[in-house]
Amino acid sequence: MFQIISLKNGIDNVQGFFTDSVNVGMRTNPANSGPSDIDGDVAFIRSESLCDVSAVFTKNRFQAAPIKHFGRYKKDFQTNFLLVNAKNANAMTGEAGIEDINEIFKSLSSKIAITNPIMSSTGVIGYKLPKEKIISAFERFDFNGKNSHKAARAIMTTDRFAKEICFKVTLENGESFHIAAIAKGAGMINPAMATMLCFIVTDAAIPKNDMDALLQEATADSFNKISVDGDTSTNDSAILLANKASGAYDRDAFKEALKKITFELAMMILRDGEGATKVVAFEVMGAKDNAQAQKAALNLSNSLLVKTALFGEDPNWGRIASTIGASEIECDEEKLSIYYDDLLIYSSTQRELDKQREEQAYKIMKQESFKITCNLGIGNGNYTAYGCDLSYDYVKINAEYRT
Amino acid sequence: MFQIISLKNGIDNVQGFFTDSVNVGMRTNPANSGPSDIDGDVAFIRSESLCDVSAVFTKNRFQAAPIKHFGRYKKDFQTNFLLVNAKNANAMTGEAGIEDINEIFKSLSSKIAITNPIMSSTGVIGYKLPKEKIISAFERFDFNGKNSHKAARAIMTTDRFAKEICFKVTLENGESFHIAAIAKGAGMINPAMATMLCFIVTDAAIPKNDMDALLQEATADSFNKISVDGDTSTNDSAILLANKASGAYDRDAFKEALKKITFELAMMILRDGEGATKVVAFEVMGAKDNAQAQKAALNLSNSLLVKTALFGEDPNWGRIASTIGASEIECDEEKLSIYYDDLLIYSSTQRELDKQREEQAYKIMKQESFKITCNLGIGNGNYTAYGCDLSYDYVKINAEYRT
Repeated sequence: MFQIISLKNGIDNVQGFFTDSVNVGMRTNPANSGPSDIDGDVAFIRSESLCDVSAVFTKNRFQAAPIKHFGRYKKDFQTNFLLVNAKNANAMTGEAGIEDINEIFKSLSSKIAITNPIMSSTGVIGYKLPKEKIISAFERFDFNGKNSHKAARAIMTTDRFAKEICFKVTLENGESFHIAAIAKGAGMINPAMATMLCFIVTDAAIPKNDMDALLQEATADSFNKISVDGDTSTNDSAILLANKASGAYDRDAFKEALKKITFELAMMILRDGEGATKVVAFEVMGAKDNAQAQKAALNLSNSLLVKTALFGEDPNWGRIASTIGASEIECDEEKLSIYYDDLLIYSSTQRELDKQREEQAYKIMKQESFKITCNLGIGNGNYTAYGCDLSYDYVKINAEYRT
Repeated sequence: MFQIISLKNGIDNVQGFFTDSVNVGMRTNPANSGPSDIDGDVAFIRSESLCDVSAVFTKNRFQAAPIKHFGRYKKDFQTNFLLVNAKNANAMTGEAGIEDINEIFKSLSSKIAITNPIMSSTGVIGYKLPKEKIISAFERFDFNGKNSHKAARAIMTTDRFAKEICFKVTLENGESFHIAAIAKGAGMINPAMATMLCFIVTDAAIPKNDMDALLQEATADSFNKISVDGDTSTNDSAILLANKASGAYDRDAFKEALKKITFELAMMILRDGEGATKVVAFEVMGAKDNAQAQKAALNLSNSLLVKTALFGEDPNWGRIASTIGASEIECDEEKLSIYYDDLLIYSSTQRELDKQREEQAYKIMKQESFKITCNLGIGNGNYTAYGCDLSYDYVKINAEYRT
């Protein structure tokens, strides 16, 4: 038995971790819609003792320089410092992009003791980091800061709100540990993985093997199930740092807390999907196997026609059916049934939407979140993907992103 | 040697073919933006003698009733009648949808001699055809009409303009034949195939084997290379009818004329892509093989981030690169180069866009059509896909389609 409770102030709760952010002039306007204090553009997470590290990165072949830089450390390296910047992805910058990171950390090492420091970047692709600006942050950082919320805001790009979670886990023997995360990500969100940065820190005394296995599992059930726009970025990273400072650990408790954190962050990212007005779960069941269910569910979450019908709150189940049919999976219109929440909206014996069910469907679609279930009626394959609608604002945000 | 010239009035030029359309009350508003004479909703194409038929249909597993109805004829059947309706797809309607077609043709057979008649439908999925309304057209059709333009307008859904082409092909020996087509399709356009109906008729004395082979080839090089929104419909059909009335034929000449017709129609469909303001060719070359080039090119034509950057006329090549990198193909940022028309926009030795090239890129992107070339620098694989931008109007049209 264990107890998980939610705490405010994110990473500030976790023993031995420090964070802060400053503005070095990369973010010249305050971030999109938030108050004017969202002006940081460089942040750090520091641990007073060395941490084990697990990470999951984008499957994009053009991994950004910070991910390549990470990859050059030896397996099972330990670190005590993570530096993040917004506004510049340091992607498609070649070997020079990696050298820039080394120079930045060389400069940092004259200010504070760092071991195998990690960098993470988000922003526009194809421009060199403004090294001098980033280095200027080191004069101004409070290296013993407890400023989780400021750091969460500094990594925002098109995000409308900061993403920050902390859980305190109390075990049966009375011991406790913390796990906390900050994340960013609002567009270019596609499974495997979302375009996002997520930094999770814990003072649990978790073994390295468990870190790797549980981060993989938690990522598969969260970030890899969401899609805003079907695009996969060059910089996606989920990084877990564990400094073991609490001395406490229980595998089941940690697993549940980590899954909860990553799933809640994934839902926050979707709710904050560029221009999104609602979050929809696409459950495909009764497929020939899980792989076919996954294919159909992810196609539903990415279909422009489905996404625009969601925005229009139009119970046009034909677009759902058509997307299933186009998914190159085994399906049969006589065996298919489609539900919006619990409302049967299509089956072979009830094809046309009568007025009453149409009214009910409208009501369901007006909610901020609901579920569309497609039962293929063929086998036992299951998968749930999560998506959002496509609005005018998505087009506006992305047509104007760089300018 | 042969000569191909373009004629006005589409199908009206082709010997022995007749067309007409009427409004039976399915289309209650005139079609989107055209003049008020776009009010037909049922049309036909009739040949006075029997035609050989070739067809290519959607790969969606939920093929609409008219496609299933077609499939029940014996291989190599001949026909003299094709009936088309807009506003109702007769898809996901089960066996009843096919019975409706049989009843409609039973009624038609009391008006005019028909052999193996074909039906084709486009519109909303999941509603039964209004049989009586469609049958009421048979009292009003001019079965000897030469009204190609009216028919081309009657099959429009969200199209902004009618799509109609005719070529006269004159052979070296002085003989000549015609090939003409009408088509519709503006959204739900995805390779394999576009959501579209395309009816091609010819009086060339083409053997059935050539019809099948050349239609497949022409479709692969046209409709299967275009994407408006990545969605594949239940009703896509390209149907070729040949009544041999001219007695003239030459394989090379027919092949070229057919390719020209299907490619021009495909480009018309893209130009008319829902909300589209520009058409872009995505050429991928230097890929490991053609299949990898195709994968990357089609991903580019479907990426929301690429499509919105095109709408914003933002030379953000990072989105192009990122989409290539996410395509699960062999690629290397050191070997990649990207061009907008002839302007080099990225290579490993010239990564950042300077002001001058950025200005040139803006100019290129302001055109109604241009080409983006990605040379992967790895092998000899090539493919060109064609796409369009994604605008506010796409969202508007598709959020409000049914209402």
